Amino acid sequence: MEYRRIKDQEKDGNGDGSGVVVAVADDIESLRAGKPISGSNVAKLGANAFDRSKWQQKSIVTLALTVLTSSQAILIVWSKRAGKYEYSVTTANFMVETLKCVLSLAALSRIWGSEGVTEDNRLSTTYDEVIVYPIPAALYLVKNLLQYYIFAYVDAPGYQILKNFNIISTGILYRIILKKKLSEIQWAAFILLCAGCTTAQLNSNSDHVLQTPFQGWLMAIIMALLSGFAGVYTEAIIKKRPSRNVNVQNFWLYVFGMAFNAIAMMIQDFDAIANKGFFHGYSFITVLMILNHALSGIAVSMVLKYADNIVKVYSTSVAMLLTAIVSVFLFGFHLSLAFFLGSTVVSVAVYLHSIGKLQR
Amino acid sequence: MEYRRIKDQEKDGNGDGSGVVVAVADDIESLRAGKPISGSNVAKLGANAFDRSKWQQKSIVTLALTVLTSSQAILIVWSKRAGKYEYSVTTANFMVETLKCVLSLAALSRIWGSEGVTEDNRLSTTYDEVIVYPIPAALYLVKNLLQYYIFAYVDAPGYQILKNFNIISTGILYRIILKKKLSEIQWAAFILLCAGCTTAQLNSNSDHVLQTPFQGWLMAIIMALLSGFAGVYTEAIIKKRPSRNVNVQNFWLYVFGMAFNAIAMMIQDFDAIANKGFFHGYSFITVLMILNHALSGIAVSMVLKYADNIVKVYSTSVAMLLTAIVSVFLFGFHLSLAFFLGSTVVSVAVYLHSIGKLQR
Repeated sequence: MEYRRIKDQEKDGNGDGSGVVVAVADDIESLRAGKPISGSNVAKLGANAFDRSKWQQKSIVTLALTVLTSSQAILIVWSKRAGKYEYSVTTANFMVETLKCVLSLAALSRIWGSEGVTEDNRLSTTYDEVIVYPIPAALYLVKNLLQYYIFAYVDAPGYQILKNFNIISTGILYRIILKKKLSEIQWAAFILLCAGCTTAQLNSNSDHVLQTPFQGWLMAIIMALLSGFAGVYTEAIIKKRPSRNVNVQNFWLYVFGMAFNAIAMMIQDFDAIANKGFFHGYSFITVLMILNHALSGIAVSMVLKYADNIVKVYSTSVAMLLTAIVSVFLFGFHLSLAFFLGSTVVSVAVYLHSIGKLQR
Repeated sequence: MEYRRIKDQEKDGNGDGSGVVVAVADDIESLRAGKPISGSNVAKLGANAFDRSKWQQKSIVTLALTVLTSSQAILIVWSKRAGKYEYSVTTANFMVETLKCVLSLAALSRIWGSEGVTEDNRLSTTYDEVIVYPIPAALYLVKNLLQYYIFAYVDAPGYQILKNFNIISTGILYRIILKKKLSEIQWAAFILLCAGCTTAQLNSNSDHVLQTPFQGWLMAIIMALLSGFAGVYTEAIIKKRPSRNVNVQNFWLYVFGMAFNAIAMMIQDFDAIANKGFFHGYSFITVLMILNHALSGIAVSMVLKYADNIVKVYSTSVAMLLTAIVSVFLFGFHLSLAFFLGSTVVSVAVYLHSIGKLQR
């Protein structure tokens, strides 16, 4: 459960992913080479190829996020089985932010080598551009501090159920802040996604969550709003200047992520770090988890750049179901009837979301 | 649980409901009187009034079926609490069929008094018309006999869950036999209806149903197909001649219902009836249940005449949820988280079904 904290903290902006972009560019090349282009259709075909390239970009980053998120959960189960939980969570969070910064810089230096430094990919920034970048990291910090208090009112499995409010809050804030419309069918699909995910997580003790006191509900809703707001705000930052290189945007997001995580580390674990050392308790699996979280964080950023928060929510929800299915084979888990029903509802929601878009 | 058998048996064709039709006719009168009709719009307004009258007819019979079905389940709970279960179920079934016959005849005699005997409302029939009428009753008889054997493989709560296959089988047979199309969204809604109803019924023991042996699944699917086929076939019979008075059609359906129930009564309860008498163990609540089942049966017929099997399935599913909510107030039941999630999914399904129709 402790590691979940990292999982939550890391869902802000980000992105190396230059490899992904290169792969997509290669695909477009082969697409163009594949068919002879006749005069009058050039413009139309160009637009089609552009649409298709955008669609491919979206698909690849979404797939990457889904795979990384589900392997994240599998690593958590694995680390629980191995009983490796002695490291300091705040240092791991700090390492994740640092690694994301390093990966963004590595991607940038590659781009500078091939394209040269331009207005869109230079690292230097203006006060006006950078002033908004600390906000998502600050929101996550507040949310993570609240997380310690909510357990006074809700137990951990109950909190997992209440966390599905995130889905609804993201949808509402996406509508209000980004002013993007979802069709009626897409709204229906979003409600189904929330109900389906919750159903899939039901177990014999889930009804306890209905006895949550008022303060617990209130905190769960506030936390869902904070988390949704941070996601939507990150999308607004990243999309504000579409031509700006995503690695530069990520670099600045992660720099502030490092700063805020350093504050959390000092508040919570100063003594432990001073006495036992920064890397105390780290194991091979801890390193794997940090690597996975860094890559997932970058994938989230790419999804927000090339798709949106709605796609992100679908992606992480489907990842949750994939994790359970993979766990059957890896760890001998049993799937419940509720899981099958929830998965069915989530699958229909994904289908309706795509149908709803076409009919708009 | 025993009384559920009646509930299942009675879902064939039927209908007094002349009162409902009169009420609708009154509504249309007031609709027409309400607005002055200008020359060129007469045809258009006439069509609108006709559409609206059809819509009202559909709504009223659907509402009647929903209310009757949910009060049915409440009567079952009430009778269980009262511990009144000593009567013979087969005699009750026979009484339900008889009462439906009597009500159909009463409605018919009223119509004959006001309209006179016409080609469409005369009781006498032809061999070609009546030959198909025994088929639904025969199908229900086979299904109810199978019901005794499925309990060798599934327990009663598990059977309640497996019965949700009925929803899917009705949809598929409706498509195949009646050749009516559902839109993609309506299919999605139908899958959601099935998943939502099952979710709402989940309890801590529901996972047992996943251990059902192959024979149990097979029988559940066969029973769902029999039940779906009987419903769809009844709709085909009732809709084959739209101008034919529904009370005549019901009369013939119920006559064969009486005959097949008499056979079941003789096979299963001959000794008990001979020794203790036909009405042994009947109480006030038994009489109420028989009355309710007769009226529900008639409402099903009216829904099949003026709407269709899809509406019937939605209506009975919503009734299931209403029953649970009413039971909270009447019997102090507790609603589970699964119930809330299932109800949400069913509500979205109802919404999508109506949206899906508009967009076709």
